[in-house]
Amino acid sequence: MPVKTIWSANGDVFLLDQTLLPVRKEVLQIATVEQMWDAIKKLRVRGAPAIGVAAAYGVYVAVKKEALDNVGADLVQVARQACDYLATSRPTAVNLFWALDRVRAEIAKNSGADLTARLLDLADRIRTEDDVACREIGRHGAALLKSGDTVLTHCNAGGLATASYGTALAPVYYATEEEKKHIAVYADETRPLLQGARLTAWELKEAGIPVTVICDSMAASVMRSGRISLVIVGADRIAANGDFANKIGTYMVALAAREHGIPFYVAAPLSTVDLAVPDGDAIPIEERASEEVSEIQGVAIAPDGVQVFNPAFDVTPHDFVTAFITEKGIVQPPFASGLKAQFFK
Amino acid sequence: MPVKTIWSANGDVFLLDQTLLPVRKEVLQIATVEQMWDAIKKLRVRGAPAIGVAAAYGVYVAVKKEALDNVGADLVQVARQACDYLATSRPTAVNLFWALDRVRAEIAKNSGADLTARLLDLADRIRTEDDVACREIGRHGAALLKSGDTVLTHCNAGGLATASYGTALAPVYYATEEEKKHIAVYADETRPLLQGARLTAWELKEAGIPVTVICDSMAASVMRSGRISLVIVGADRIAANGDFANKIGTYMVALAAREHGIPFYVAAPLSTVDLAVPDGDAIPIEERASEEVSEIQGVAIAPDGVQVFNPAFDVTPHDFVTAFITEKGIVQPPFASGLKAQFFK
Repeated sequence: MPVKTIWSANGDVFLLDQTLLPVRKEVLQIATVEQMWDAIKKLRVRGAPAIGVAAAYGVYVAVKKEALDNVGADLVQVARQACDYLATSRPTAVNLFWALDRVRAEIAKNSGADLTARLLDLADRIRTEDDVACREIGRHGAALLKSGDTVLTHCNAGGLATASYGTALAPVYYATEEEKKHIAVYADETRPLLQGARLTAWELKEAGIPVTVICDSMAASVMRSGRISLVIVGADRIAANGDFANKIGTYMVALAAREHGIPFYVAAPLSTVDLAVPDGDAIPIEERASEEVSEIQGVAIAPDGVQVFNPAFDVTPHDFVTAFITEKGIVQPPFASGLKAQFFK
Repeated sequence: MPVKTIWSANGDVFLLDQTLLPVRKEVLQIATVEQMWDAIKKLRVRGAPAIGVAAAYGVYVAVKKEALDNVGADLVQVARQACDYLATSRPTAVNLFWALDRVRAEIAKNSGADLTARLLDLADRIRTEDDVACREIGRHGAALLKSGDTVLTHCNAGGLATASYGTALAPVYYATEEEKKHIAVYADETRPLLQGARLTAWELKEAGIPVTVICDSMAASVMRSGRISLVIVGADRIAANGDFANKIGTYMVALAAREHGIPFYVAAPLSTVDLAVPDGDAIPIEERASEEVSEIQGVAIAPDGVQVFNPAFDVTPHDFVTAFITEKGIVQPPFASGLKAQFFK
């Protein structure tokens, strides 16, 4: 069972600082909304579903702090500002905006009950729902796996990317733990921030699941050599037509999978589906600092001042996707109707 | 003009230690054949053509040292042993074996002249021929480039991979210097050893040619966005049918280029063509230490003891290649006849 990534205890909010893994396992207490913004921006907490949970807890800590510091403050105003502020942390994962929309709806209720308590309750609920959704993704996805299969995945869409069970790795965990199937994983290291080598390899190793780390550029030849049964990746935003944004490099994996006739699955909760976005061209792609590429753990690996291009995500067109795995089941093409239908299940 | 990578001066042999670039520019004097073996193995000197030159100088230093240390020694025997020993340094680049075959032929001549002098002369000649071949590759390849083009390349097949002018980068240098065309380059960083970020970016920056570093996994989406006019890569061994081995990740670049209708060229001297090998399946692929993937510059980036797969090269099937660029000209398909014909030009 994967480790806890973000949680509350006695009204305090904690998260595991993922930038230090696998070398150090350090828990941060988050006491201000600025700390939460920073944790999201710097990828201390990352992965689309976990970012949604983090945003909800972020609004809660903003209101809690203000209520303590400044008796009689306009907490509704503070909560709304916190929503707007947290929305600026990262642009691509839609789960952030989805969670903030739910928080805004809660704020607007303006019921008699204490706002602070309601926000904590909502954040805890979003966290629990994510747990349940991931488990359901695991259950549905496990049906696609048979004992002896080897899954290739990119980046980390495991337990560390969610409140607990993961999206892309959920079928692997479920098939292993609940169905006693033997599943092995190839983990792309996932440059620039190495979430595959640092996080996916770490959590699978902790769970006792065989994992082999490869450089991203090896995926195509590993597929060509017959080592891979299927690909499962996560998503940061899925457009209405099934085009989806995920960690940079996912598109290249999809190309290689199609070339070698290997099924390519995308696992994500419905909170990742953005029906308001018609196709992948409309998904905003975050560009990040050049130092993420030109330095690794503070060590320069490129000439000083060299030009770098560092998009954090890419868009994979829907026709590369074999099927989506959500908490409601498997979505086969055509995706435009199939994804929409999931919301009414 | 690129920097010198390996050369002799007054009978001494020197090389630029490429493992330290771009942070430090350190020249090593090579006084023993063991030092040369180590320099090849550890990639202090690397790139298929440069490895060939290094091997020839390696045999020379073996004989020179023995002649000094041990008057009356059987130098022919020493030279032959040095050939066998250096052949074990790296398995994939055929230029190593090609150069050693020339050295063996020189040894066998058994002329009256001093063997030490003949071996130095041969090594210098192989080095000069490489210079000339690279320049000719540049001249032929430059005809494929028009001003404003952007070339994507993988790994380093530049001046640092040869005695001086480069193979994949030779057309870029020639078009820029001799034809005053404006050419820009996207350099894949090329994990695990980052020869693209460390070496290609460095030598192009030194030459004043615009270069942008990207992670390997970004190549496909950079192509999809329309930024790339053509791809040029080098080769470590080209089979008789045109299948070729090059740095791991080249196959993925070829897949992406074909998907986006981008021409994909392979630039290499004829010493890289191995007519004795019918196709790519027969090319030996070197697997290297797992630490090259799990550590970067000595810093761990994956959990301790995790399983790693680290093939140093991959094979790209010939049908992904638009054309080969050799010192004799451009080779269009069908490659089986075209490559062979180059040897009789």
